[in-house]
This record gives sequence, structure tokens and C-alpha cells, in this order.
Amino acid sequence: MCPDSDREMPIRRAHGGDVRQRGFPDRASVDEAIAWVDRHTPGLSFEEVRVEQARGRIPKTPWSAPADLPATDCACVDGYAVRSAETIGAGNYNPLRFRVQEHDGPLLPGSVALVASGEALPQGADAVLPFEAVQAHLDALDVSSPVAPGTGIARKAEQVRAGSTLLESAQPLRPQDLGLLASLGLKSLQVVRRPRVQLAIAGPKPGRGSASGDADGPMLAALVARDGGIVDTLCADISGRDALARAIAGSRADLVLVAGRTATGMDDESPLALAAAGEVAIHGIALRPGGSAGMGRVGATPAFLLPGDPLACLCAYDLFPGRMIRGLSGRDPGLPYPVGEFELRRKIVSAVGLVDWYRVRLVGGGVEPLGGVESGGLASAVRADGFVLVPASLEGYPPGKRVTVHLYREAH
Amino acid sequence: MCPDSDREMPIRRAHGGDVRQRGFPDRASVDEAIAWVDRHTPGLSFEEVRVEQARGRIPKTPWSAPADLPATDCACVDGYAVRSAETIGAGNYNPLRFRVQEHDGPLLPGSVALVASGEALPQGADAVLPFEAVQAHLDALDVSSPVAPGTGIARKAEQVRAGSTLLESAQPLRPQDLGLLASLGLKSLQVVRRPRVQLAIAGPKPGRGSASGDADGPMLAALVARDGGIVDTLCADISGRDALARAIAGSRADLVLVAGRTATGMDDESPLALAAAGEVAIHGIALRPGGSAGMGRVGATPAFLLPGDPLACLCAYDLFPGRMIRGLSGRDPGLPYPVGEFELRRKIVSAVGLVDWYRVRLVGGGVEPLGGVESGGLASAVRADGFVLVPASLEGYPPGKRVTVHLYREAH
Repeated sequence: MCPDSDREMPIRRAHGGDVRQRGFPDRASVDEAIAWVDRHTPGLSFEEVRVEQARGRIPKTPWSAPADLPATDCACVDGYAVRSAETIGAGNYNPLRFRVQEHDGPLLPGSVALVASGEALPQGADAVLPFEAVQAHLDALDVSSPVAPGTGIARKAEQVRAGSTLLESAQPLRPQDLGLLASLGLKSLQVVRRPRVQLAIAGPKPGRGSASGDADGPMLAALVARDGGIVDTLCADISGRDALARAIAGSRADLVLVAGRTATGMDDESPLALAAAGEVAIHGIALRPGGSAGMGRVGATPAFLLPGDPLACLCAYDLFPGRMIRGLSGRDPGLPYPVGEFELRRKIVSAVGLVDWYRVRLVGGGVEPLGGVESGGLASAVRADGFVLVPASLEGYPPGKRVTVHLYREAH
Repeated sequence: MCPDSDREMPIRRAHGGDVRQRGFPDRASVDEAIAWVDRHTPGLSFEEVRVEQARGRIPKTPWSAPADLPATDCACVDGYAVRSAETIGAGNYNPLRFRVQEHDGPLLPGSVALVASGEALPQGADAVLPFEAVQAHLDALDVSSPVAPGTGIARKAEQVRAGSTLLESAQPLRPQDLGLLASLGLKSLQVVRRPRVQLAIAGPKPGRGSASGDADGPMLAALVARDGGIVDTLCADISGRDALARAIAGSRADLVLVAGRTATGMDDESPLALAAAGEVAIHGIALRPGGSAGMGRVGATPAFLLPGDPLACLCAYDLFPGRMIRGLSGRDPGLPYPVGEFELRRKIVSAVGLVDWYRVRLVGGGVEPLGGVESGGLASAVRADGFVLVPASLEGYPPGKRVTVHLYREAH
């Protein structure tokens, strides 16, 4: 629900200190913030979707097959159903002649019957000869090589046995999974419900262009979609503490993201709005960039404060609310990027006590940082091939060190 | 357009031999079929989409920035704008006092002015002191350490220079790309138009369950979506040559997929329907499974024949029409799976002249085939971790051989 700017919102309680024009007196560690996220991630819920709508959704697992596939023994090629024992002795210089009978009764001695791939076999048949393997005449055919029993036949339950477990792990459904489910006669299945996310974008600060506010909306909507969530409501350009508090308090979503106005300027009122609508658990995290992020709750609904600066917003999103959204959508809650080990070509300087998020570029098999930890803006995350997170316990990495890189694109 | 079963369709010409109840007299090689696909893939076309709709789309490249970012020098932290030279000599035992002035004029000597992150600096200022770095009093503040020029400041065009190239390669747009485009004031951009694909699913053969036909529709729709296409029309369960020919001829899509009835049974009339509506260029490919696939054209529109058996359908889709759809949507036309090198734990037997598509499972750092090349049905592609393509020139691979595996899932 978007806020109604005419209605007054009573401030219920104001947790969290006011950092405006003072700065952060202390900060939560990234580990503490992640622990808060994990503690407050709600349990999964499920919904029924049609098979043809289920690509990429996470199925409820383990999932057991409702039927055998194939349901009966059947041909798996087009051709002639035969008793294999009757082909023994056939050869190029000794073709054996068979009579072609109708398919609707048991196979008579010395006879074959036309079958199509997928069709049940006539009683007595135990192999299928493809057309390429025979010489056809009117009502008869010659077989020039013996065929082994079972050739050209799919056995009942050969692919799937009723009650056996398919879809063991909670992975996004692939095209072949949907095909198999449909083969088994399934029309719909239970999948993890997508979390609904409300985005509230705080308006630009006075005297400042609206660029970062404009950037955060499309970027966060794409991040939420990538992580399996649905943007339930996007409220852009909300001005003032009361309007923000109403936007936060009025949400029916599974979680709320407030972007912008989280730092130390006089008009950075998002933390105060969250305190008014609910409670602030953490504001200020030992992270660069993204240190003005925070989190709390409105009733039972988790709410996150994300910096307005787009680069800081991206970093804080990926580590905190993104983690919750991925978990709620049934995915691995960890960072959603493939990782690789690369040799660092230039040193990275960090500060003990802070997690530093360096954008890096691949250079001849190694990586090098793209400028300082807080420089380059969102353009640095566009130009980067990936990033390195320097743990709070380290002062950085020397050149030549092998480091773990989270890659923005996969190297196919 | 779905076929109107009441209307008669004249058979215009019938290229390609009739293989029904005869078998394939010869087959095109996989390389020949791929060369046909590449020769008949139309050029890219583009469309304008809104930035917030552009996630995953392929931008028209190279794309040049329309403006500088930031547009002017500005603060990148909240705090006090200062002349850095005036802080020289400041220390814990020698705090320097500054007067706090309004922001609306040039900075006076001995003065600082409040600025918010993103705001332009007052004339004369060359650094910003964050609130944590100062001791504030009424209308004045004390600075206890010198600040270097440029601290807390983002320079005009520091992130992006107008006219410089962003988005160099044709990769799907990521959340940060959309954020940066929006930061630059962009509302929409040119992206590769998604190819429209008509699916025509031939009805089940008489006497045979409809399982495979039911499987191919949802599976192909998901494959087309995965590869960047849009299913324009799905015509399911089309019976008879004339109805199929009408479905093929009436398409307004960029390409047509006909699934089912491509093999050697009497009712395998899809190739004849394509011949009636247009022309068959290839029918029968030296590939297992998937050997009854084919391709041709209706006017200028490429049309593909895919086997009804879901496993064969998947294999033939990925190699031939999937290649065209990926190319038309601006992606790499190659197989869309990450690859890895693995040691083979059991031998793979192939036939010279045929490309064999073996499903394999990861076993303790190596891979082993999941049964025979044509056995296991679609369930084998669901259980597999990936697949190995054995080239036509080889008789297979011995155990211990390192082989290239296309992985169905990424190993994060």
C-alpha cells in the first residue's frame, strides 16, 4: 500500500539512536546482520501452479512419481513386432520370411505385426524390427539378421517407477523436468510461493538530483525478480518521515525494502520512519560501501533500510534482504554468483573491523581492483567482472594472493 | 495461427522422400544440419523497451553514455564542505575551529558548510568532512585531523563520461546495468527483439497414450523461453497432414516448430505436411536420439521437425531450432550449458558416422553414462547432471578418458 500523504501517522516508538549530523556511534558487524536476517527469515510456504507455468520455480521436495513410465511394455521404434527366437538363423544368404498380420490379437507363429513407437506390443512379441532392418513385400517380409529379445522395446516402469523419488533437491525446474511431469499425467504441482516485496523509495534530498532514487527503483525491482521475489508495490519518491512510516506500516508484503535517506544528513529520516512504524534492530553496519544499511520489523514483517547511493544499495541488498528473499523463494540464500579463485594483480587495502566489497576486473587470468572500495559508483559494478569481499579480520590482500571472486557473469 | 480443420489445404510441392514404412535411405550429418541452421538464421531486429522492463534483455551495442555521471562535482558523503588547505596542522592537541555558514554562497575563509551526499559543493570547497570526523558546537565545529583535497567528493564524470562506451558486449542486462542506465536519465533503450515461435504439436498416434505429445508442449515452451524466445501460438494435438500443413503455412511467427510424427510410421505425416506447406531441406539426421528431426522453410520462415519422443525432442531442439532461437535473441547460439572436463568412469560406445548424445551423472569427481544412448527416456535427462556429445568421427570413449560435459546445472 502506498502512503496516503494527507493522513497523519502517530509515532509509536522510536528505537535506534538518531545518527543525523552526528554519525554512527557504533556499527553491527556484517556477521551480526546476517545472523539477524537468518533468524527473521520466515518459513517457506507453497502454492499450486500449472506445469506449463512452473519453469524456474522450486518444487516441494522430495516429490514421488504418481505412476509408472511407461505404463506398460511398448515399442520404442516404429516397425514390426516379432518373436525374437524366430529370427535365429536369419542372414543375408538365408533371409527368413514372415507373414504380416493385424495388430489386434496375439502374434501367430511365423508372423509379425506393424507397431508404432509408443504402442503396446501384441501378446507374444518380445522385439521390434525397424523398417530399415527388413525387406518388405506384399503381406510378407524378409528378415536378414537375427534380433535380440528386448530390441526396440521399452519396458513398463523402465523410466520411472510409481512411488520412486524424482526431484530430490530444491533446484529450479528445468524444461525436461516439466516434460517428465507432464509425461506422468501431472497438470499442476506444489512449488515454493514467491515472496512479495514492497519497495519504498525515499524521494531525493533537496538540492540533489533525483538520479540515485531513480536508479534504485529499477535496480531493486530487477534484483528482487532475479532472487525469485515479486515486487508487490513500488512506492517511489516518498517525502518525509510520516509518509515513509505510513508506507512501511501499511504493507501487506512478506518484506519491506526502504531505499534512500538512511545516512547522517538532517533529512535522512528512513530509520526514524521505521522506528515510528515498528522497530529498528540494526542501523549502521561495518561494511563499505553500504554502511548506512539497517533492518528491523513492523509487526512480524521484516523491513530493511538500504542506502540511497546505488552502489551502496546494491551491496547492502545482496548481503541482507537479498539473502532473505532468496531463502524465502526456496533458493540457496548465499550470494547468487558463481565463484572462482583468481590471483590478485594489485594489492587491496582494507580496514580491520570492516567488510570491504571491492569490484574487480579479470586481467589475463588474474584480477585487479577497479579503484577504491567506495569509489567509482554504480558504474564500477557495471564495468566489473565480479567482486571480492575482504573479511573484517583482514587488513587487505597483497598482490599475488589467490582470492575468491564472485563473478557477475558466468564464463561459459 | 491455429489450423482451421474445415478448410482444405492444397499440397503445393512435396520435397523430401517419404520414409514411412521404409526407413531413412540416408541422413544429413549434424554438421550439415547446423550449417543449414546458421545459413537460415535471420538477422537481428530491435525494439525499444522501458528500462524497468529490460532485465535479461540483450542491449543493442555498443551503447554510448548520453551524459556525464556525476553531472557536476558533488559531495559523496554527508558532512561539512571545507577548504582542505585550512585543515593543515589540525590535531588532537590542536583542534582547529571553523564557523558553520549557509550553503548558498561561496565558502568564506575559516568556514564550512553543511552538505548532503549527492549535493553540489559551495564554491571554494575541495573536501567534505563526515560528521564522525568533527566535534560540533553551536554554529561552529572543531577539526582534529587534516583532510586531503578530494576527500568525500565525487568529481564530474568520475563514473561515466558522456559519449564513452558502456555495455560493450551483447550480454543480458543485469540489475546494476538498469540502475546505471536510470542514473543517466534513460527511460528506455533498444534491445534485441525476442523471436516469436509457433509450436505445433502433432496429436498422439492411434492406440498410443498421449504422454509424449503432452510432454513436448510444456517442455518446448520452457526451452523457447529459456533461449529468449516467445511462444507466439501453441497448437496442440493437431491431427492429419492437412491440418498440420495449414498450421505451418498460416504462421506469422519468426520460426515454426512441429513436434511429433516425424518418424517412419504410416501416420508420421509431419514431413509431408511441411513439404505440402513449403519445402523440406533435411529430414533424417545422423544423431541418436533425435535422428528423425528435420528442417525446411515455409516461404522465408524456417520450420523445424522435432521427434515426438520427448528425449529425442529435447536433444534435437537444443542442437537445431534452439540454436536459431538463441542466435535470433542475441545470445550465443551454442549449447546454453556450462561445460567442464571430467574423467569418464565407464566406456561410452558410439557408431562412426553418428553423433551420440549420452546423458551422464557425476560420480566422485568423474562421470558415468546413464545407460545406453537411446535408453532411459526423458527421465534420463532429468536424472543426469549433464551430457556428452560423441562426435561422428569416433567409436566412443574408453574409461579414463577426459571428456567435455555440458552441465544441466551450474556447480555454485
